[in-house]
Amino acid sequence: MDIGGSLAKVVFFEPNSKADGAEKKKRIVTKHDLTRNLSSDSDNSDADDNFEMLANYVLSNHYLGDNGIRDQRLEMHDQQFHGQSGTLHFIHFLTSRMDECFEFAKTFRLPDLSDVVCATGGGAYKYEGNCKEILGMKLRKYDELECLIKGIHYIYAHNPLSECYFWEGVTSDGSSPNARKVPYDFGDPYPYIVVNFGSGVSILAVQSPDEYYRVTGSSIGGGTFLGLCCLLTGCETFEEALRMAENGDSTKVDKLVRDIYGGSYDKFNLPGSTVAASFGHMMHENKRKQMSKSDLARAALVTITNNIGSIAMMTAHAQKIQRIVFVGNFLRTNDIAMKMLAHALNYWSQGTMKALFLEHEGYFGAVGALLKLSDQVNTEKNNNKQ
Amino acid sequence: MDIGGSLAKVVFFEPNSKADGAEKKKRIVTKHDLTRNLSSDSDNSDADDNFEMLANYVLSNHYLGDNGIRDQRLEMHDQQFHGQSGTLHFIHFLTSRMDECFEFAKTFRLPDLSDVVCATGGGAYKYEGNCKEILGMKLRKYDELECLIKGIHYIYAHNPLSECYFWEGVTSDGSSPNARKVPYDFGDPYPYIVVNFGSGVSILAVQSPDEYYRVTGSSIGGGTFLGLCCLLTGCETFEEALRMAENGDSTKVDKLVRDIYGGSYDKFNLPGSTVAASFGHMMHENKRKQMSKSDLARAALVTITNNIGSIAMMTAHAQKIQRIVFVGNFLRTNDIAMKMLAHALNYWSQGTMKALFLEHEGYFGAVGALLKLSDQVNTEKNNNKQ
Repeated sequence: MDIGGSLAKVVFFEPNSKADGAEKKKRIVTKHDLTRNLSSDSDNSDADDNFEMLANYVLSNHYLGDNGIRDQRLEMHDQQFHGQSGTLHFIHFLTSRMDECFEFAKTFRLPDLSDVVCATGGGAYKYEGNCKEILGMKLRKYDELECLIKGIHYIYAHNPLSECYFWEGVTSDGSSPNARKVPYDFGDPYPYIVVNFGSGVSILAVQSPDEYYRVTGSSIGGGTFLGLCCLLTGCETFEEALRMAENGDSTKVDKLVRDIYGGSYDKFNLPGSTVAASFGHMMHENKRKQMSKSDLARAALVTITNNIGSIAMMTAHAQKIQRIVFVGNFLRTNDIAMKMLAHALNYWSQGTMKALFLEHEGYFGAVGALLKLSDQVNTEKNNNKQ
Repeated sequence: MDIGGSLAKVVFFEPNSKADGAEKKKRIVTKHDLTRNLSSDSDNSDADDNFEMLANYVLSNHYLGDNGIRDQRLEMHDQQFHGQSGTLHFIHFLTSRMDECFEFAKTFRLPDLSDVVCATGGGAYKYEGNCKEILGMKLRKYDELECLIKGIHYIYAHNPLSECYFWEGVTSDGSSPNARKVPYDFGDPYPYIVVNFGSGVSILAVQSPDEYYRVTGSSIGGGTFLGLCCLLTGCETFEEALRMAENGDSTKVDKLVRDIYGGSYDKFNLPGSTVAASFGHMMHENKRKQMSKSDLARAALVTITNNIGSIAMMTAHAQKIQRIVFVGNFLRTNDIAMKMLAHALNYWSQGTMKALFLEHEGYFGAVGALLKLSDQVNTEKNNNKQ
């Protein structure tokens, strides 16, 4: 697990066969089945059966409960863990529902199967006590950065042909209907910058698999986008905010260079369409009358994306690094932000830099936590042998 | 004049005596007197008398019209221009009222007294045509950066004891009731960073009086603060937004490190009170119910100030420069922002850097334009002599 500021990400490994070699037949389990199971006398039920049912529920649904999603498009087959072949699954849900998640796990008697939960992210610290209290399980914490970097390298190595990509044919406003994703060879990546675009933003410099550090960060991130959109447009979810932004026009909200200069500002190589003051039009009553909620959502998206793009470039320059990889769930189904970052990096570097993206956007920390757990299990096995 | 994205700044020189040596007695002119004068048959009035009346109106009032302010506390006496001693006056009004300003000047027959207006800032480009059209006057444009730097050096040289200062005894949230301003000797300033915090933000590196360049900038500036506050709180002016922010609590709006980690994040030296996601609480309905409009205004102020503080520090590091001077009208009567910048720079540089401020905050560009005009007049005089 990677328990972030807005989303908890879960990665789990499903072996193709049971240890005894007999593959149990999967069956489809609906939310209704689960609820019925919960309302029956669960004290007499078998923990393994419970887990089987829960696993089958998760694996036969895309939406889990009312705020969880299993990203089926991202699942990875033929992965090897502890001598078994199987599939990696990717799930996320709202961090604000963590306690419900613990209650749910308790009802399904997960503590009967394991006495430890492995997690990274801020929530690994915050929810340590609740995990112990509600589930009676120890929450083992792994370092956030180490998990992120380990996760990136594992996933790229196991999905080299389509994991990493850049956008080609983008325009400045992020609409770019003709832009297309192009695979990028990330096989020899060092050094590179990672921008982890979550609720907040962390920017790391990675020199080698074991040499990396946090250079800087920003509190203006995905949490700011969603928070502002909830306030300004009345939306409730990230997806809703994104859909509004897709239909909006930020130039009705932002004051552009041409609104101040009457045209471009050639001396600084600033085109007239560059944003001079984000939300700058909104100080004028007549401009407030001319905009829509979608325009506000688009402006929030543009403001936050441009700010991080600019900070990422400054970091790359200062670190003398050419490659910038953007990850994190702010980029989830967020083509506009990715295309804007692609355009900005290309424009400001005069074509020498590319914004790189990874398909498993926000899951690298959780993958890293799984790898750490796996390492630990191997170490314990070896210690037991000696 | 320096015509910016939100405010037009005017600096003018009032000679102590007329060229003929006879000082005219100043008289108090009210808005009512002005209006009466305008409604009388102005075709028969004398342009000099008109100007005299206008000048007396400006000099006998603090508030000019319904959006202009004369900053009496900033006026500088015993200044020398073209062999005359006199006073520099500082005025600003909303850029959105520029056309009214031209109409006003036309009514007062300013074009009869001069055929040129001197200006810098984006508006010098945008309003060039209107100036010609409405007033029949040429608008002479000066480079924004050159004016800014010239203005800073002139004002500091003529007000060395109290122009430049830093804040002592500040705390992280900007409240710091016991903080005090301490004069700073800016006599040997090179190299230094200037952060021009207007509607948008420009960051310059200054190596010597004639060597300076724009390193970076941000669209998240004072225009963003006012725009967001107008949308989120219903306020109408910068002053109103600031007063709200003074009474607000941003921790009700922002998600802090302790909200995600449950405490501080020691590995990155991030105290629990550090903002992790600006406006991050606002994605939760229960948190939206617990905050006030003042809290939103405070959060907007904190978000924008911290972002620029961080970008300024990154720029200083990358340029290997220790001194950062913050100017621009976002800082006008904005003690919270100044104290936050002071605290942030001190904290993140572990006491090696100070945030410096200048009393004439947003007027340096306009002062520079006046100096450029003065240089030009001198050059023309010399050319005429030869």
